[in-house]
Amino acid sequence: MIKHFLSLSSFPQSDLLSLIHRAQFFFQNQHSPEKIHHLLKNRIFANVFYEPSTRTRCSFEIAAKRLGADIVNFVPEHSSVKKGETVYDTLKSLESLGVDGIIFRHADDHIVEQLQPFLKLPLVNAGAGKFEHPSQGLLDLLTLFQEFGKLEGLKVAVCGDVKHSRVAGSLMVAAKIFGMQIYLCGPETLLPEVTDSHVQKADFDTILPTVDAVMMLRIQLERHEDLDLDPKAYHHQFGMNHRRQLSMKKNAIILHPGPFNRGVEISDDMVEHSQSRIFKQMNNGVAARMAILELIINGRS
Amino acid sequence: MIKHFLSLSSFPQSDLLSLIHRAQFFFQNQHSPEKIHHLLKNRIFANVFYEPSTRTRCSFEIAAKRLGADIVNFVPEHSSVKKGETVYDTLKSLESLGVDGIIFRHADDHIVEQLQPFLKLPLVNAGAGKFEHPSQGLLDLLTLFQEFGKLEGLKVAVCGDVKHSRVAGSLMVAAKIFGMQIYLCGPETLLPEVTDSHVQKADFDTILPTVDAVMMLRIQLERHEDLDLDPKAYHHQFGMNHRRQLSMKKNAIILHPGPFNRGVEISDDMVEHSQSRIFKQMNNGVAARMAILELIINGRS
Amino acid sequence: MIKHFLSLSSFPQSDLLSLIHRAQFFFQNQHSPEKIHHLLKNRIFANVFYEPSTRTRCSFEIAAKRLGADIVNFVPEHSSVKKGETVYDTLKSLESLGVDGIIFRHADDHIVEQLQPFLKLPLVNAGAGKFEHPSQGLLDLLTLFQEFGKLEGLKVAVCGDVKHSRVAGSLMVAAKIFGMQIYLCGPETLLPEVTDSHVQKADFDTILPTVDAVMMLRIQLERHEDLDLDPKAYHHQFGMNHRRQLSMKKNAIILHPGPFNRGVEISDDMVEHSQSRIFKQMNNGVAARMAILELIINGRS
Repeated sequence: MIKHFLSLSSFPQSDLLSLIHRAQFFFQNQHSPEKIHHLLKNRIFANVFYEPSTRTRCSFEIAAKRLGADIVNFVPEHSSVKKGETVYDTLKSLESLGVDGIIFRHADDHIVEQLQPFLKLPLVNAGAGKFEHPSQGLLDLLTLFQEFGKLEGLKVAVCGDVKHSRVAGSLMVAAKIFGMQIYLCGPETLLPEVTDSHVQKADFDTILPTVDAVMMLRIQLERHEDLDLDPKAYHHQFGMNHRRQLSMKKNAIILHPGPFNRGVEISDDMVEHSQSRIFKQMNNGVAARMAILELIINGRS
Repeated sequence: MIKHFLSLSSFPQSDLLSLIHRAQFFFQNQHSPEKIHHLLKNRIFANVFYEPSTRTRCSFEIAAKRLGADIVNFVPEHSSVKKGETVYDTLKSLESLGVDGIIFRHADDHIVEQLQPFLKLPLVNAGAGKFEHPSQGLLDLLTLFQEFGKLEGLKVAVCGDVKHSRVAGSLMVAAKIFGMQIYLCGPETLLPEVTDSHVQKADFDTILPTVDAVMMLRIQLERHEDLDLDPKAYHHQFGMNHRRQLSMKKNAIILHPGPFNRGVEISDDMVEHSQSRIFKQMNNGVAARMAILELIINGRS
Repeated sequence: MIKHFLSLSSFPQSDLLSLIHRAQFFFQNQHSPEKIHHLLKNRIFANVFYEPSTRTRCSFEIAAKRLGADIVNFVPEHSSVKKGETVYDTLKSLESLGVDGIIFRHADDHIVEQLQPFLKLPLVNAGAGKFEHPSQGLLDLLTLFQEFGKLEGLKVAVCGDVKHSRVAGSLMVAAKIFGMQIYLCGPETLLPEVTDSHVQKADFDTILPTVDAVMMLRIQLERHEDLDLDPKAYHHQFGMNHRRQLSMKKNAIILHPGPFNRGVEISDDMVEHSQSRIFKQMNNGVAARMAILELIINGRS
């Protein structure tokens, strides 16, 4: 059976824990190529990003290369897409070219699930629509696990444009699986409807002193011209800064999926603050993606 | 002597047969990297595509990597071309950078032949102008050979914009070498003058029941605005569909170089029909290109 | 201590000589992969070019691959830059992704020096602003050294838009270190102020018979619309051509960093003239960059 990586929700807790442990192994051995460089030797993956991304694309590329695999970057805008080819036909073509797996990002929320039954090779969801970004979810879980040694019972605030955030989407899925509590903060119009007992809306300044981690989200100013979001006013109301950091627990951590807007959702001095794990998350991302690529090839989890 | 791969016509039949057999070896061993991954170790090729292409570029890239070689993708639009550099100087620069071969596509029909005498490294024609696409020709021959165990005497219909098709161009060259018979079908204004006894024009529905294979070509609607081509009317007159498939011999096959427009030159249900070899062609393309890359490096054929 | 490669001026003469000798070793062994392909095995570099470049980017990519390393190409325009990410955050992200070194080009003269103290991984300056292009400087030194067996006392004319040329900038730095004499020629408005005793302005036709080498620079016609530079008139006054070549010493050589405009700063017949080393320079560029990549990883120099 083909092993895809499409959503955290398709894995039982035990499988995700195994993946987190495997990612931790890769994290610990990131400077020991002799232990890992043979694992996916001769494999070739395709990066197929219908939406641009630096970090995620490069993160998968580096993960593949660290495992001895190689990657071809398919850039839709330079391609047959211009000639009217459907996404299905593009993926089927890559399958026919013999790649071992496809790392896929698309603006459509459901296109991966819809296409998956018709493809004979494993797919990795590298971000779909507004709801899912499961490899980011896995790296966030790894980061929390490294910090607290457990996931159950952790309290995590998510602040910003939650409604349009794939990162928040995958974190909410994980909360249900692992019994974490998520608090959604930010402008009321940018928060989604809540239907899960593990998720609730909260006032940012009220909840902040109680949480183990806070995930700051980028405000996509270009998307919200109608909201008349003034960066300074936004920062005052919902930004992470020194004043708010002081209100947090001493062992609580600050997360951000990047890229971030300094001075908007996070102040300059918080990005590399001792409680911030933002660049650690990026480092963990490669380890998490190594675990994912190994999983889809070897079914190891 | 440098071994180029510029046109099928520059090879005698016996050399092409050797190439087809070698490609078949790569096809059969596509899941046995230990048999092939060392063959072009440490070689570096350059993909130089002045016209965009997903499949062909990726196909060569995967072929190179399967053989243990690597590839650099030169994208003219991001480059010195903007600064007025000539094609010759660009290729000479890549030669000076020490690449082992150049995979080249350009809109100009004759530029490869013109430049080849002045370069000291092997060139692969990955599509030139309107007439030649010899690596596609080789994969089509491989596909026919796998199906019928021979090429001589095969009857192949080609339907669509034959006049502007490199794929048809290389197939007509192959017909002469191997003694196949080609039937050109489609709108009269899109058919070329016929001067070769192995090629003749034919009515699509009349010839279809007699052929071993039919090669459907993409109608480049964007090129033919003046023709007032209505997709539905075109499909009715020249498209492959269930009705026409029923008229074909039971062991005849449907080919298409891709990308295809579903509902125009081919109906949805024909793309993956049991008589279609469209995705098989793409799979064969990697094997054919492995044989080509090995040829230009080792002179093996 | 991290070993960067940011400017020729940060190395003592002895270190640069070691680098030139190491580059010469790579030049001599460019067809002996078994001697060099293991040297940077499992390393991954990132090409981060905020300004487009074919030759330099490909040159570093091929250098890395010849040493057994791999490279990820970060293309800022397809990336988070669009989302407002700062250069520092982009580089810090790549550092977090675990790349072993960053090859960097940016229009800002000082950005590399400013960012370097805050990064924990080695940086290679692949062209910054108007003043520095030290890997080009190294390959030019290698080319001169191969020709004359020494650098001290060599006389080099540089002709063209010297003021905006990084290539000239790095050559002037090298002149001071190695005791070469540089003569600046070209339109008065395109020459910089001279403050160094190793550099002086000169009349092109007067100085040409006395120099060991002449470095022709591309006139960036697109930049100088105000100058009303007529290509023919420019060529007559400052272009390299048969008449001027005849005035040069028999063992003097013609250099050009490329890309070049045939018929403007250099005539067609001079590009591959027996006294020209233009394509040799490109070949040397890969060897020089191999020495640089090895230096930043192993501190070898």
